[in-house]
Amino acid sequence: MSEHSFVWDAVQRVRTGAPLVHNITNYVVMNTTANALLAAGASPVMAHAREEVEELAGLCSSLVLNIGTLSKPWIESMFAAGRIAQSRGVPVVLDPVGAGASSLRTWTSLDLLRELNISVLRGNASEILALSGAGSRTKGVDSIHQAADAADAARELAGKFGCVVVVSGAEDLITDGSSDVLVRGGHDMMPRITGMGCTATALVAAHAAVAGSVLDGAAAGMGVMAVAGTMASRKAKGPGSFQMHFIDALYGMQSFDVEAGVEIVR
Amino acid sequence: MSEHSFVWDAVQRVRTGAPLVHNITNYVVMNTTANALLAAGASPVMAHAREEVEELAGLCSSLVLNIGTLSKPWIESMFAAGRIAQSRGVPVVLDPVGAGASSLRTWTSLDLLRELNISVLRGNASEILALSGAGSRTKGVDSIHQAADAADAARELAGKFGCVVVVSGAEDLITDGSSDVLVRGGHDMMPRITGMGCTATALVAAHAAVAGSVLDGAAAGMGVMAVAGTMASRKAKGPGSFQMHFIDALYGMQSFDVEAGVEIVR
Amino acid sequence: MSEHSFVWDAVQRVRTGAPLVHNITNYVVMNTTANALLAAGASPVMAHAREEVEELAGLCSSLVLNIGTLSKPWIESMFAAGRIAQSRGVPVVLDPVGAGASSLRTWTSLDLLRELNISVLRGNASEILALSGAGSRTKGVDSIHQAADAADAARELAGKFGCVVVVSGAEDLITDGSSDVLVRGGHDMMPRITGMGCTATALVAAHAAVAGSVLDGAAAGMGVMAVAGTMASRKAKGPGSFQMHFIDALYGMQSFDVEAGVEIVR
Repeated sequence: MSEHSFVWDAVQRVRTGAPLVHNITNYVVMNTTANALLAAGASPVMAHAREEVEELAGLCSSLVLNIGTLSKPWIESMFAAGRIAQSRGVPVVLDPVGAGASSLRTWTSLDLLRELNISVLRGNASEILALSGAGSRTKGVDSIHQAADAADAARELAGKFGCVVVVSGAEDLITDGSSDVLVRGGHDMMPRITGMGCTATALVAAHAAVAGSVLDGAAAGMGVMAVAGTMASRKAKGPGSFQMHFIDALYGMQSFDVEAGVEIVR
Repeated sequence: MSEHSFVWDAVQRVRTGAPLVHNITNYVVMNTTANALLAAGASPVMAHAREEVEELAGLCSSLVLNIGTLSKPWIESMFAAGRIAQSRGVPVVLDPVGAGASSLRTWTSLDLLRELNISVLRGNASEILALSGAGSRTKGVDSIHQAADAADAARELAGKFGCVVVVSGAEDLITDGSSDVLVRGGHDMMPRITGMGCTATALVAAHAAVAGSVLDGAAAGMGVMAVAGTMASRKAKGPGSFQMHFIDALYGMQSFDVEAGVEIVR
Repeated sequence: MSEHSFVWDAVQRVRTGAPLVHNITNYVVMNTTANALLAAGASPVMAHAREEVEELAGLCSSLVLNIGTLSKPWIESMFAAGRIAQSRGVPVVLDPVGAGASSLRTWTSLDLLRELNISVLRGNASEILALSGAGSRTKGVDSIHQAADAADAARELAGKFGCVVVVSGAEDLITDGSSDVLVRGGHDMMPRITGMGCTATALVAAHAAVAGSVLDGAAAGMGVMAVAGTMASRKAKGPGSFQMHFIDALYGMQSFDVEAGVEIVR
């Protein structure tokens, strides 16, 4: 099977399977990630109240924990939902938004990694470096490093926490500590759109829910991001129209779009 | 008066009257529903703090209670705002997002229906079935039923709580328990856009604020949704561009668009 | 230096300097203001948790305090972040969304003005009048006054609190109490898009971070709003497409766009 058919099969599997993705995510991206999941064919639910997260984590096909606008009660909900999801064997995907920019974010991410069985950790290079202890302070939530800078840190974290680590960037690295996958595609306008990283995390969760392995699911999710980014870049006049075309691309992508929009190296 | 002029009159009444719609709504849709209300000519205010909801409910022309991302303090604010709004005789519209998916959502919706004088309850078929006790568990927040499946449940709830019930779907049902209105229009891409149901609820509230009766206001709101959906579907290439054209359509719709974009059956 | 090159220089300074703008802002606009800041070349961080706001305010180039969806814990975070930012000498910009519509909003705005060293206060005419004590109640969060109506109130507030006051409207007034700057441009569709005022506040903060003076920064921010609004108005078919073209314009504006898109009067 070529790598393009690997991504195209994954696209069809999400469209057919419509996995229920439970998101405990930040206020900034709730709308755009829900739209990305719906456009890709998944069924998102956004819920964070302590009173209901366990019930919804008990129904979902995968769980997203995104710390982008963190506060104490949400941390408690993340642990509660995470424990239910992992006990059911469904993937738990962590997005450590802004790790390195504040102690709250760095330490909450590490606590979640230590106390839950996180399936996938997806961050930008600065966040992954911060969590490995190798990074200096990040500047806010935007990466000041390239994905390649964080390759060693990613492999180390994958080994330490027994998870797949995704470092997104111009070229994405997906590693389980021993095997690496590289995903090339997308466009350099993507970091100028808020929540593109969070959307990647949500798509990784949707694909991990229906994939044969967590590594394959994570690679497929990043592959779909790259394809939609490549498609959007052909029509966009700026980040506003990029965001719109990106959602349309997730909804409409066909096998030939996948073939033209991403390169995958194992 | 034809049914088209009924909808067109309603459109003009909102544009002229600019009703102040107070929304206690979920994080996912705050931006898109505020934009839909502004595009339609209404004046939205989004406020949920216990300290100010009574003051704002004391000014508004209608009130939206939407439980899409519920938590305990917001429930208290919903009751407080609801009591003020109903004492002033302005319409209170409830959107039971995800009722059936968690006990918190099901029971909060039923508590609000029992303890307040809700004017309109608007949900998808799965939510309405869950509230009538006839439904099995829903899958997250997306409906797995057609509106027609929930017709009996809707009429029963309308009678029990003395309110108008709207079941939205490919064909919308609006009922006060004895009279039914059917609204046909829109496009099957709408469920792939997050918050379209919440937007319907907000437009129902805007129209209920300026209509001759709650039933007429609810039907007009759903009619406007259908017209804007039909208009957007002619230009959209996917759910991203659909959302944009939908807002443009609310802003620009003319009488001939109404005539071509919706069918109403009483 | 002509006033156009003044605005164009400011655009380039934000693109080059990429100032980190810390936003404690409302749920409705978090996504759209983050996107506006990114499109303009700034680096936004949205964070409100008491546990981390001081750390982030310790890194930022400017701070936005926006009371659009206020609640008690956020007020505490606003004071904590504000104290750090002012001690570091970075601009603190206050957006009193809905001041006059509820006591919570009016009094919180006045408390922030009294107890912090606010650099810029940006509101619509109704909000500025409400804070000066000259205004009657506003209608929700939309202005029912023109900027010119609030000119005296703005100058008085600027003098009283030692800050720059921006009254946005069809023509924007920027005043430090003794000198006035008028900014003309944009389009009358802008009040039909939620969060345009909040975006203005965020752009003022980005420009104040890199400007020679707070007055110049505020004028540049409003100038950039006007240019992007003028550019978007040429392509928009309604408020949905306006928002998209507006973000694209922030990203792509060139010196000739600035020349054609704004008039500045000192």
